[in-house]
Amino acid sequence: MPRFFTGPVSGSRVCLSGETASHIRVLRMRPGEELTLCDGQGTDYVCRLEALDGAGAQVELLSSQPSAGEPAVDVTVYMAFAKADKLEHVIQKATELGAREIVAYPSARCVARYDAAALKSKLPRWQKIAAAAAEQSGRGRIPAVRAVSGWAAVLQEAAAADLPLIFYERERNNSLRSLVQVPWRSAAVLTGPEGGYTEAEIAAAVEAGLRSASLGARILRCETAPLAALTALLFAAGEM
Amino acid sequence: MPRFFTGPVSGSRVCLSGETASHIRVLRMRPGEELTLCDGQGTDYVCRLEALDGAGAQVELLSSQPSAGEPAVDVTVYMAFAKADKLEHVIQKATELGAREIVAYPSARCVARYDAAALKSKLPRWQKIAAAAAEQSGRGRIPAVRAVSGWAAVLQEAAAADLPLIFYERERNNSLRSLVQVPWRSAAVLTGPEGGYTEAEIAAAVEAGLRSASLGARILRCETAPLAALTALLFAAGEM
Repeated sequence: MPRFFTGPVSGSRVCLSGETASHIRVLRMRPGEELTLCDGQGTDYVCRLEALDGAGAQVELLSSQPSAGEPAVDVTVYMAFAKADKLEHVIQKATELGAREIVAYPSARCVARYDAAALKSKLPRWQKIAAAAAEQSGRGRIPAVRAVSGWAAVLQEAAAADLPLIFYERERNNSLRSLVQVPWRSAAVLTGPEGGYTEAEIAAAVEAGLRSASLGARILRCETAPLAALTALLFAAGEM
Repeated sequence: MPRFFTGPVSGSRVCLSGETASHIRVLRMRPGEELTLCDGQGTDYVCRLEALDGAGAQVELLSSQPSAGEPAVDVTVYMAFAKADKLEHVIQKATELGAREIVAYPSARCVARYDAAALKSKLPRWQKIAAAAAEQSGRGRIPAVRAVSGWAAVLQEAAAADLPLIFYERERNNSLRSLVQVPWRSAAVLTGPEGGYTEAEIAAAVEAGLRSASLGARILRCETAPLAALTALLFAAGEM
């Protein structure tokens, strides 16, 4: 059954216009045929096409259920600012893999910097990348893509997760595997810039309640580490 | 201590030339200082610099040990032919993460094809990407990058692993998590092209002894699936 992302859905009938209506036309769907609408917030709606004309498509809502493509755990990926191609790569892949949100932030050794003006133009583009990846991978939710401007604010937010983890290449004791042996439903995954975190950043993170964690004996690039951590957490949670 | 990849190491003294000698010069190393040579086959050698002149650097071997960066399990990644940028991405990332070998192969729905002439020019380039990623990530071994030209040959090779897995987006029963609950030291991870495997390919794989496996409810792109599977296996093996 064809599946389309829309905004929030309410009532018993929805009028679809723009790209979605065009797509329905391209598929040569006929009144009476069924399709699925996803609100991008975790709910799928099975619908019946009632009418299709120049103004758009009208559909009747038949039933709704939680989207099948959503993980049962919420993992938010916090990635230090990096060059745009690396950030965009992580946004696309983290969405496919099942991240709940993707948050970019400045770190002491970041080479790439995004001021408020740059973020104003970048964030809508990043959100579109997440939307396209969510649709293609069959997710039920488009992860929010955000930026947080200060280390203290990042730590405060991340510390609220059941499993708040900061990945540090000099951490030798706490394997990720040892840290996931607790009940958790939400996790925060912080990874650093190409030059790594400073000791002061790690100290502040631990002080704020985060656990310093290792991703193993190999040094992962700044765009590899967040995806490896996300994958391992979803696997540990029984999502693979 | 500076660390350099060389070819095979033997005897009690080694003469280094070319890039490695240049690098030692750039680092302004002095006779008497120590460095590590890695043979790219899993062994690190602690050495002392004896002499450095226009002809190169002479070092004395002091001790050797298995490279710290190598996983205790061998995971070979079999990736269906894809566009060059996607293959190169997977070669780089799979090396960082800890793959033992990376094997490209043709699959029924592959759009990208590489004939013998194309492979002759591509394989050296792909091997260089693996070498650079191995050095940067601190590995002790440069994964071999190979191509295998037929499905039967791929299956025969893969079936010899303790854990031979083929990832199929229509598999609903066998989660990766359920399949790793056996003792294993070697694994083969097969992932398909953008259009997915044909039913005939899956049937032949199962017939050859491979287990059809799921990577979860989300549809991963052809360049995401091999890295997700590799990461999850290494995590399951206690490598993270």
